[in-house]
Amino acid sequence: MEYQKILDQIQEELNYRDVFGKVASYIPELARVDPKKFGMHLYSTDAQQSSFGDSSEKLSIQSISKVFTLTMAMKILGEDLWDRVDVEPSGDPFNSLTQLEHEKGIPRNPFINSGALVICDILVSNLKDPKAELLEFVRKITGNPEIDYDYTVAASEKSTGYRNYALVNYMKALGNIKNDVEPIVDFYFHQCSLAMSCEELAKAFMLYANRGKLLETGERIISKTKNKRINALMQTCGFYDEAGEFSFEVGLPGKSGVGGGIVAIHPGQYSVAVWSPLLNPKGNSELGMAALERFTTLTGFSIF
Amino acid sequence: MEYQKILDQIQEELNYRDVFGKVASYIPELARVDPKKFGMHLYSTDAQQSSFGDSSEKLSIQSISKVFTLTMAMKILGEDLWDRVDVEPSGDPFNSLTQLEHEKGIPRNPFINSGALVICDILVSNLKDPKAELLEFVRKITGNPEIDYDYTVAASEKSTGYRNYALVNYMKALGNIKNDVEPIVDFYFHQCSLAMSCEELAKAFMLYANRGKLLETGERIISKTKNKRINALMQTCGFYDEAGEFSFEVGLPGKSGVGGGIVAIHPGQYSVAVWSPLLNPKGNSELGMAALERFTTLTGFSIF
Amino acid sequence: MEYQKILDQIQEELNYRDVFGKVASYIPELARVDPKKFGMHLYSTDAQQSSFGDSSEKLSIQSISKVFTLTMAMKILGEDLWDRVDVEPSGDPFNSLTQLEHEKGIPRNPFINSGALVICDILVSNLKDPKAELLEFVRKITGNPEIDYDYTVAASEKSTGYRNYALVNYMKALGNIKNDVEPIVDFYFHQCSLAMSCEELAKAFMLYANRGKLLETGERIISKTKNKRINALMQTCGFYDEAGEFSFEVGLPGKSGVGGGIVAIHPGQYSVAVWSPLLNPKGNSELGMAALERFTTLTGFSIF
Amino acid sequence: MEYQKILDQIQEELNYRDVFGKVASYIPELARVDPKKFGMHLYSTDAQQSSFGDSSEKLSIQSISKVFTLTMAMKILGEDLWDRVDVEPSGDPFNSLTQLEHEKGIPRNPFINSGALVICDILVSNLKDPKAELLEFVRKITGNPEIDYDYTVAASEKSTGYRNYALVNYMKALGNIKNDVEPIVDFYFHQCSLAMSCEELAKAFMLYANRGKLLETGERIISKTKNKRINALMQTCGFYDEAGEFSFEVGLPGKSGVGGGIVAIHPGQYSVAVWSPLLNPKGNSELGMAALERFTTLTGFSIF
Repeated sequence: MEYQKILDQIQEELNYRDVFGKVASYIPELARVDPKKFGMHLYSTDAQQSSFGDSSEKLSIQSISKVFTLTMAMKILGEDLWDRVDVEPSGDPFNSLTQLEHEKGIPRNPFINSGALVICDILVSNLKDPKAELLEFVRKITGNPEIDYDYTVAASEKSTGYRNYALVNYMKALGNIKNDVEPIVDFYFHQCSLAMSCEELAKAFMLYANRGKLLETGERIISKTKNKRINALMQTCGFYDEAGEFSFEVGLPGKSGVGGGIVAIHPGQYSVAVWSPLLNPKGNSELGMAALERFTTLTGFSIF
Repeated sequence: MEYQKILDQIQEELNYRDVFGKVASYIPELARVDPKKFGMHLYSTDAQQSSFGDSSEKLSIQSISKVFTLTMAMKILGEDLWDRVDVEPSGDPFNSLTQLEHEKGIPRNPFINSGALVICDILVSNLKDPKAELLEFVRKITGNPEIDYDYTVAASEKSTGYRNYALVNYMKALGNIKNDVEPIVDFYFHQCSLAMSCEELAKAFMLYANRGKLLETGERIISKTKNKRINALMQTCGFYDEAGEFSFEVGLPGKSGVGGGIVAIHPGQYSVAVWSPLLNPKGNSELGMAALERFTTLTGFSIF
Repeated sequence: MEYQKILDQIQEELNYRDVFGKVASYIPELARVDPKKFGMHLYSTDAQQSSFGDSSEKLSIQSISKVFTLTMAMKILGEDLWDRVDVEPSGDPFNSLTQLEHEKGIPRNPFINSGALVICDILVSNLKDPKAELLEFVRKITGNPEIDYDYTVAASEKSTGYRNYALVNYMKALGNIKNDVEPIVDFYFHQCSLAMSCEELAKAFMLYANRGKLLETGERIISKTKNKRINALMQTCGFYDEAGEFSFEVGLPGKSGVGGGIVAIHPGQYSVAVWSPLLNPKGNSELGMAALERFTTLTGFSIF
Repeated sequence: MEYQKILDQIQEELNYRDVFGKVASYIPELARVDPKKFGMHLYSTDAQQSSFGDSSEKLSIQSISKVFTLTMAMKILGEDLWDRVDVEPSGDPFNSLTQLEHEKGIPRNPFINSGALVICDILVSNLKDPKAELLEFVRKITGNPEIDYDYTVAASEKSTGYRNYALVNYMKALGNIKNDVEPIVDFYFHQCSLAMSCEELAKAFMLYANRGKLLETGERIISKTKNKRINALMQTCGFYDEAGEFSFEVGLPGKSGVGGGIVAIHPGQYSVAVWSPLLNPKGNSELGMAALERFTTLTGFSIF
C-alpha cells in the first residue's frame, strides 16, 4: 500500500478543519506548546517510512509512556502483575478515585493514572535505578541513544501534581503501594516527561506491531503472548474514557497522551504516530483522532 | 488450518476440568438446563465446519441476541442511533442503574441491558411487528427458517424481570424511552428467548466475520463500516464487566449470554460458538471462556 | 409568646421578597397551582391558633404524607420495620437509585421515595384497605372527617410516575418488595394527593409536638418513644438533600413536600405549617424555608 | 433530676453486657489502649457533676476535636466559611473521596475528615500558630491550663495517615485547599491527639449546652446563633455514617471519636461525656452509644 499518498491526503483534508480542542493547561509547561503543531509518521512492517508536518519534532509523550513501563513490569513480574492491577476498561474519567474505593486499591487497568502509579511502584521495588533503566529500554527499542526526559516538564508536573499524590497516598492507605510516596511520583513524572518525535514513537511501537520483536534485528523483547495482551489492553483501555469511541471509529489498538500524541498499531502491518496538541473534552488529541479515523477509512481496513 | 483437530484437543483438555460456575438461577426456566451440556462449533470463511459435543442442541441465546437487534437498529437509524446510546465500556456490572443517573438516561453501550432496551424501543417505534421481523432477520442470516422464540422462557423471564422493568421505567423518566413500557419489555424478553444451537450461532455470526456479507450468497446485509463498528463494540463491550479480561485472554470480538453461550469472530477468518451453562461470577460461561482462550492459544493467533 | 404578631411580621417581610423558585412541573396537575399562594398556620400546645394568608386553602401535601404512613407502619410492625428501611440521611437527591444498589434494596430512610414505597408495601401487606385506613387516620388526628384524596392529582402523578415504578420494580428485583407493583404505587400516588390546608396540617402534626397524644382529648396515638423517633427522623431526613441546611438554619424537625408545603414542630411547644408553591432547586418551598427560618429567629429559640 | 443515680444504674447495667466492638487499630498508638476502660461524666447547667468509672482518665479525643476547630473557624470567617464546606450529612463512610469528586472539592460537612481538613486549612491561613491557639482555646473553655496534645499519638497517626494526605492533595487538586499540604496535616494530627478526660470533655461542651457562654463566668464565647448551628451540625453529622441512628436512638446532638469517646448535649440542660474504646463497625463507641441511649431513656427526655 502506498502509505505516503494516504498521509498526504490526510494532511490536506485536516489542514482546513476547524479545531475546537484546547491545549492541556493543568501542566504549566505543556500549556506553552504551539497549538498549531501537527505531524504524523507511519512505519510499516515492510520498512516503509511515511510522514508529514512536524513528524520529527519532539513532543511530551505523557501517558503514552505507560505502555513502556507496563512492558517492563510484565517482563519482571509475569502473571503476578495482575494481582496488583486489573485489565478492565474504567468507565470513569482517567483520574477517578471512586473506583479504587470499591475495589480495595486495585486500579481497573494499567493505563489509568492509578494503574500506572502501581506499575511505577512495582518498578521502584524491582529496579535499582528505574529512571535510568526506562531510558535504556526506550533508547533500545527506538534505536536512538539520545532520547531523554524533559526535566523542566517533569518539575512542572510535580509542582501541580496533587491528584497523583492523592492517588498514591490513597492506594497506600488501601494497601496496594509498597514504597514511599516520593520515589514513585518522581519516577512517574519523569516517565511522562519523555520527549520523543512521531517518528521515534512509531519506531518504538513497531515492537508491538511486530509480535514483540524488533523489526531491524529480529531480537525478541517480549513474548508473543505478552505482546498480544499489551495490544488488547491498548484496544480496550488506551484512550481514557473514550476507548470505546476510538475502537469504534478507528478500530486499532493505541495509546494517547495529554501532550497531544497518539500511537496506534495494526498487528503485522504498521505502527503510526500522530501529534496535535489540541485536546477534545475527554483529553485526547482532536486532530489526532480524526487523522487516524481517516487513515483506517482511506486504507479501507482496521483489525475488524 | 485444521480446525477440527484443535477442537478435539480442546474438548479433551476441558472435559476433565473442575468447573466452579453456576447455572443462571434468576430465570426459573433457565435454571432447569442440564449443567453438563458442552458443545462448540466453528465455521471458517473457507467453509470448513468443525464441532464437538452438544453443538447442534438448542440453547437460550439470551444477550447474544443483542447483536442482532443492534444490527437491525443500525440499518434503520444509521448515525442517529448514537444519540440514544453510547459506545463506551460500562465499567459496571451489566445491570447497573447508577450510570444512567449521571448520563441522563443514555446507556453506556448497546450491549448492557439498558442499552439493549433502548434498541428495543427504537425497533418498536420503527417496525410494524418487531418480533416477527427479528425472527425473519435471524432466519435469513442463518439460512434456517425454523429458528424460533422459546415462549416458555420468554414468559419465565417476564414473570421475574423486575430489574428490566425498572430500567425501562427509569429511562422513560429520564426521557430516553419513547414507547409504552409493556411492548418494549415484551419484545426484549422474546429476543432473549431465541433458541439456537452453536452451529446456528456460528452460521449467523459468519456475517460479522465476513465484512457484512453472507458467505454463501455474497449478499450484503450491512455495510463494511457498520460491520467494523459492530465488531469493535463486541471487542470492547461484549462481555459485561469482563470485556477487558476476554479481550486480554482471547483477543477476539465476541458476545456472551447468561444461557452459557458465547460467540466470537476473527474478521476474515472464522466465527465460533461455544456453550456450557455454568457461569462464572461475572455472568459469562466459565468453560466457554476457557475454550476460546485455548482456541486462540492453540491456533497461535488472535486479532492482536 | 404572642405568635400572631410574629406571623404578621413574617408575612410583611416576605411579601416583598424576590422569589426565584419554580412550581413543581413534573406532575402536570401540580404545575397549574397559583404560584402566588402563601399561607402559614401555627398551633401551640397552649391551644393558640395563629395564621396569615392562604392558611385555610387546600394544598397537595405530597411527601408530607410520608410521616402519616410511617406512623401507621410503626404501630403495626414496631421494631421489625427497621429490617426493611434504614434511618440514615441519604446524602443523595431524593429519588436516587444508586444507593439501593449498594445496600441490597434497603432504602436509607422512610422519607426518600424508595423508603416511602417500602412503607406502602408494608401497609398493603397488613391492611385490608390501605387507602381507606389512611384517610381514617388522618381524619382522626385532624378532627376533620372531610379530608380526602385529590383523585385528579393522583391520576396525574400516576400517568408520569415512571421513576416510582422504576424504584418499586428495582427493589422487588432486590427482594425488598413483597406485593405486586400496581397496588403499591396506586396507594403511594393517593397518599401524595391528600389535600389539606396549613391549618389542618398544623393540627395533624400537633400529635408529634405533643409527645404522641392528641391535644384536645389526650388520647395516645403513638408511644412516646416512637414519637421521639419520628421526630428524630424528621430532623435528620425530612428535607430531601437539604435536611442539614434546614436543621442548620431553622433547627426544628419537619417535613416538606413538592406541593410547596412544609410542617415543622417544636416538641412541647407548637406545630407550624407553611405553604408557597415555588420550590428551590432541591425541591423544598423557597418561601416556606425562609418563613420558618425567620420564625425561629424571631421567637429566639429552636430545639438547639 | 438526680443524675448520679441514673449514671450508677447505667454503669451497673452495662458492666455485664457483652461487647463485640474492637479498638481502633489503624493508628498504632491507639491500638494499645486498655479495651476495658469505661467512664462517664455529666455536667448540668445547675452545676451538678455526676460520674462513674474511668471518668477522670485521659483519652485520645480524636474527631471530637473537630467541634473545637469548627468553633474557631466560625468565629474567624462567619458566613463565608460555608463557601468552603457544606452542612449536609454525608451518607457515606467518614473518609469518603467519592463525594468530593462530584462536588468540586467541597466536603459535605465539617465533621467528616475532608471537612475537618478544610477547617485546618482555614485556621492555618488565619492564625499565626494554630496549634498553640487551639490549645489556648480548649484550655480556656475547660478551665484547665494543663490540657495538651499527646505528641506520641500525633506522630503515630502521621506515620500511617495516608488517607488524610490523599484527601488534602485531592482537594488541593480541586482548588479547595490554599496552603501547603504538610502544615495542614500536621495541625490535623495534633488536634486529633488532644488528651482529655470525660470530665474535661463534659466541661468543654457545657459551652454548647449553655447557648455559647461559659457556665462559670457567663463569658460569651460564640454567638447564640452560631452555637445553635454547631449543635444542629452535631445532630445531623456528628456520628460518621451513623448520625441518623444516634439521633433516632438517643435524640441529642453529639460528637464521637475513634478513641472511643462520645460527647452529647441537651441544650439548656447538660453536657455528658462517655468513654469506652471498643468501636462498632461504623467507628463509634459501642458501649458509649448504649450508655447514652440508656441515659435518655432513663431520664425520659431527649430534645424530641
